[in-house]
Amino acid sequence: MGFNILRAARAIVRVSDLDAARNFYVDGLGFIETEANDEWIYLRGLEEHSHHSYVLKKAARPGVEVISYRVAHESDLEGLAAFFEERGLATKWLEAGSQHAVGRALRVQDVSGIPVEFFFQMETVERKLQRYDLYKGSRMQRIDHFNCMVPDVEKAHDFYIKELGFRCSEYTETEDERIWAAWLHRKPTVHDVAFMNGKGPRLHHVGFWLSDPMSVIHTCDVLASLGYASNIERGPGRHGLSNAFFLYLRDPDGNRVELYTGDYFTGDPDFQPIRWDLDDPRRATFWGHEPPDCWFYEATPFIELNNSEQEVAMSEAALEQRKPNFVT
Amino acid sequence: MGFNILRAARAIVRVSDLDAARNFYVDGLGFIETEANDEWIYLRGLEEHSHHSYVLKKAARPGVEVISYRVAHESDLEGLAAFFEERGLATKWLEAGSQHAVGRALRVQDVSGIPVEFFFQMETVERKLQRYDLYKGSRMQRIDHFNCMVPDVEKAHDFYIKELGFRCSEYTETEDERIWAAWLHRKPTVHDVAFMNGKGPRLHHVGFWLSDPMSVIHTCDVLASLGYASNIERGPGRHGLSNAFFLYLRDPDGNRVELYTGDYFTGDPDFQPIRWDLDDPRRATFWGHEPPDCWFYEATPFIELNNSEQEVAMSEAALEQRKPNFVT
Amino acid sequence: MGFNILRAARAIVRVSDLDAARNFYVDGLGFIETEANDEWIYLRGLEEHSHHSYVLKKAARPGVEVISYRVAHESDLEGLAAFFEERGLATKWLEAGSQHAVGRALRVQDVSGIPVEFFFQMETVERKLQRYDLYKGSRMQRIDHFNCMVPDVEKAHDFYIKELGFRCSEYTETEDERIWAAWLHRKPTVHDVAFMNGKGPRLHHVGFWLSDPMSVIHTCDVLASLGYASNIERGPGRHGLSNAFFLYLRDPDGNRVELYTGDYFTGDPDFQPIRWDLDDPRRATFWGHEPPDCWFYEATPFIELNNSEQEVAMSEAALEQRKPNFVT
Amino acid sequence: MGFNILRAARAIVRVSDLDAARNFYVDGLGFIETEANDEWIYLRGLEEHSHHSYVLKKAARPGVEVISYRVAHESDLEGLAAFFEERGLATKWLEAGSQHAVGRALRVQDVSGIPVEFFFQMETVERKLQRYDLYKGSRMQRIDHFNCMVPDVEKAHDFYIKELGFRCSEYTETEDERIWAAWLHRKPTVHDVAFMNGKGPRLHHVGFWLSDPMSVIHTCDVLASLGYASNIERGPGRHGLSNAFFLYLRDPDGNRVELYTGDYFTGDPDFQPIRWDLDDPRRATFWGHEPPDCWFYEATPFIELNNSEQEVAMSEAALEQRKPNFVT
Repeated sequence: MGFNILRAARAIVRVSDLDAARNFYVDGLGFIETEANDEWIYLRGLEEHSHHSYVLKKAARPGVEVISYRVAHESDLEGLAAFFEERGLATKWLEAGSQHAVGRALRVQDVSGIPVEFFFQMETVERKLQRYDLYKGSRMQRIDHFNCMVPDVEKAHDFYIKELGFRCSEYTETEDERIWAAWLHRKPTVHDVAFMNGKGPRLHHVGFWLSDPMSVIHTCDVLASLGYASNIERGPGRHGLSNAFFLYLRDPDGNRVELYTGDYFTGDPDFQPIRWDLDDPRRATFWGHEPPDCWFYEATPFIELNNSEQEVAMSEAALEQRKPNFVT
Repeated sequence: MGFNILRAARAIVRVSDLDAARNFYVDGLGFIETEANDEWIYLRGLEEHSHHSYVLKKAARPGVEVISYRVAHESDLEGLAAFFEERGLATKWLEAGSQHAVGRALRVQDVSGIPVEFFFQMETVERKLQRYDLYKGSRMQRIDHFNCMVPDVEKAHDFYIKELGFRCSEYTETEDERIWAAWLHRKPTVHDVAFMNGKGPRLHHVGFWLSDPMSVIHTCDVLASLGYASNIERGPGRHGLSNAFFLYLRDPDGNRVELYTGDYFTGDPDFQPIRWDLDDPRRATFWGHEPPDCWFYEATPFIELNNSEQEVAMSEAALEQRKPNFVT
Repeated sequence: MGFNILRAARAIVRVSDLDAARNFYVDGLGFIETEANDEWIYLRGLEEHSHHSYVLKKAARPGVEVISYRVAHESDLEGLAAFFEERGLATKWLEAGSQHAVGRALRVQDVSGIPVEFFFQMETVERKLQRYDLYKGSRMQRIDHFNCMVPDVEKAHDFYIKELGFRCSEYTETEDERIWAAWLHRKPTVHDVAFMNGKGPRLHHVGFWLSDPMSVIHTCDVLASLGYASNIERGPGRHGLSNAFFLYLRDPDGNRVELYTGDYFTGDPDFQPIRWDLDDPRRATFWGHEPPDCWFYEATPFIELNNSEQEVAMSEAALEQRKPNFVT
Repeated sequence: MGFNILRAARAIVRVSDLDAARNFYVDGLGFIETEANDEWIYLRGLEEHSHHSYVLKKAARPGVEVISYRVAHESDLEGLAAFFEERGLATKWLEAGSQHAVGRALRVQDVSGIPVEFFFQMETVERKLQRYDLYKGSRMQRIDHFNCMVPDVEKAHDFYIKELGFRCSEYTETEDERIWAAWLHRKPTVHDVAFMNGKGPRLHHVGFWLSDPMSVIHTCDVLASLGYASNIERGPGRHGLSNAFFLYLRDPDGNRVELYTGDYFTGDPDFQPIRWDLDDPRRATFWGHEPPDCWFYEATPFIELNNSEQEVAMSEAALEQRKPNFVT
């Protein structure tokens, strides 16, 4: 394999009102605003020395422009370009300077049509990890993972595992042994990206790491105080799958973020993917709580690589898109 | 007033299977089992030096025999007897020795028909507060309060406030200024007893104090590990009303208990009861989460003071019994 | 007894620099500043609906003007005045209006010479308990207790118990059964006031309640970030005595405050005071940690009731003032 | 580089009394005992699917037999053997079957004389991560790192960085820019191994990961309840260096373990090692607390690779071995 993907690194997400988004993400979730202007807000977590891990872009309609992975070496970008071109998948170079604070980047559309970016270099800034006096809201730490709805999870799973070098930590199967969802990683945590069966491709959520469960609880209290109670979509709870303590939120434009803490080390060569039955009531929430319908059915469209006015075309799910049958 | 009620002190609750109940309360919730035999289990929290605060009694059908308050002096019992007799309410003396580990007790039926007990003396046992090596499950600390569904909350409210010397910390009103629920206290916390509008009288739950929110979270994890995920009925969450962090559970017989932590001091003479609108979405759960239907409609009948085979007769709620209208 | 003392309610403490003190107490500890001018800062906790519980007064030299208790009725003030006058102890009335936001107050000097105030009425303000968006630093909740060094603990203990109606929750004895320290309460917690053997009278600290141990941990992180690491004097740790999780801080003028959470209910009539041996290594810190010398020997003088220029005269401790012998 | 070291994987530590050690590690720290006999106890954390990460071996005198790293492929062992032989360092093969539950292993003595082992295969067992009903004491999760005292930190630092492929996350320098301590990692956390200036080589401690700070606090409470208060050597506290929340313990034989949680991701290519000045008071404990002398001066000897009766010879520290000068 002529490349080494390191980790989920950033997402570029459209919002309709930058001030409303800032209130939510900075005051509520405790992101640090690295920079902003009339069109963009660049956000990072307290632990991050990279310029940003989440970019809000002002736009009339919702959409995700790209999800980005960091690579280990500049030369990995060429390796990835060759790989994607060889498979006939769309690629596009963004030269250094064309994106603020980011070096040369390769954008592609993956086997599910998801616009994915790879980059090696990003401007560095001061880490605020030990500026506890600045901690507020969720005390946002760092980006952790992406979760995408795709019509054919098995195809995505195989592509990322066999072609891109990801490993599977956990997966959900239907009773007839079809992969309903899969959690895949490059860094030795539960995931950098997960794929779930559903109409897509769509971005289900971006997951951010918090330092401990009490930060999740405090998030709920702060959001409710700020008038964002209705933005709390699901949780707090414990995932069976991943064992993480979680909270799902919808930003003012409906983009979903997950606050996530407490998964485990997956870097051993003999780690075997953990199988969950789709209908195991402890899979989604270990405590048996049912996710709401909106969590299953709503997600954000992606934007075409070469046409910023165009959403990526979607297909219906290959497997029957249903809530697990423990959800009545 | 010729008596001084101190606090909510114990409840006697029927269960169909003592071993099943023990597994739930001792292994799951971390109660200490002070004593047990074929008919009874006497439970207490880690901080309690009293013999018990929760009694499980084997019986074929569910029911609450009595909820008990401790009084400040032995002589308060006579004062209370005189008071209840004067109002024509049923009273019954249980002499010392007739109940295990408890001194002389006065039982009555209050203005809602609830069987209530007052006692002064209870056998003392070793406090386990600093036996952290014994902590498990919820790390149960102590009894905190009772919550009862009654058909006429205003009547119960007035009786406890004007006649028994309780004070109101918080209350819920309908849009036409009828009291829908009230939280009443003798000890300077949010409540020793709450009354909620509903078919009754029935016991909605007994509330127990935990030391911190992480003990509530850990309870969910432990219960799920033990196969009790479906016994988690509501929460964890933050109450708007009371500000407590809570979790509602159903024991194997359906009796409801609340784990509760983090309310506030109510002992100041100028503390004004806090009014909540029934339809305020932050009232029940500050974060906006909806309680499930069963939480609104299910509760445990009380048993008649003078006929242990007979449930206390119930009436329909005076106010329309409905879920708040933010619950769709 | 012709009076009913409710609880520890406020202290008036001198500081040399109001801005420096504000930085420490508001930014670091998360107090709410109710009001301030060039001479005073009035602080309260997030849960308090009273105008203040801690008053900083600008002055050239350190000193505590008074520690104040709230009483249950206005008429208790007369009862207390009569009581103190009868015993020949100094008294002084401050009429309503003479102190900002406080009604008529009775000041006295107690049997140890400590300037103590009693008041019934204080202006009320908005509770911020559910303004989680304003929480910062320690997330200060409310005042809890005073701790005073006095030369004769037994005398103070007997006076407060037998004359003022306090109850003892826990106490420390020397091997020859002399009371070395005592924790006394009116509200049903471990204490409203504690007395420790030492040169005095001096104020050892004012204790404030936090909602949970993680707020204590976060306090240390925030104080260190703000440059106040050297203001952390002792802890965090678990007290054997009281079972509370604690942290002792020195403000920029050296005044000591304790952050305190997790004691227990003491309101039962059969609660027996818990005896600790002075040399039990788990007494001070349950985990065996030794307090530093300064914690044992440093405290703030009180100011004379009738002469604001004059410190209350001190005596040496009746018992040998020594650190417990487990402290090497 | 012809090998790929994955992570710190296990240590074999001598104890004089297996039952005493079991009480401490299993009842106190919550390790799972995978297997034991009269000579050995094999321990693992709740999250570990490997047979063990910490081995207690009965022996008359203290000593560390080996610290072990896991490699990515079986063939890495040959690469490492060739590398160490080439440098003239002692090597020794332990064939599969010669150590319980471990495959073929290569043992060497590194440039500081430390007995180090590399292995690829270890028997797998059931993960207990979601058996919350079994959680007790510290709720031990997994092994995290080793910390060794060596006489020449710079030599060790250079060897591990330049020869073995470790990266430096943080380091401490004296005022004359000599490396006093260094934290080195293979997995993307702060460290798999740290080296500190001191008489050595000796093992300072093995670090184990806990899930959150409250597990550290609870450890102190449980250990004190079990009579192990004097085994708490330092902390709990926040490290400046690594930002982890920590606690140092001594087992009944004096072996030191660190409980550790909350460091950060170090896997980015542009992560720059963080420099700390030896005399920065926030370096060791962010809150300014001083470690005790024993923490600076006491450590466990290593055992010679080829002579289990012989301790590895020690040298005095190259840099003056002193406590930082903020420690008075």
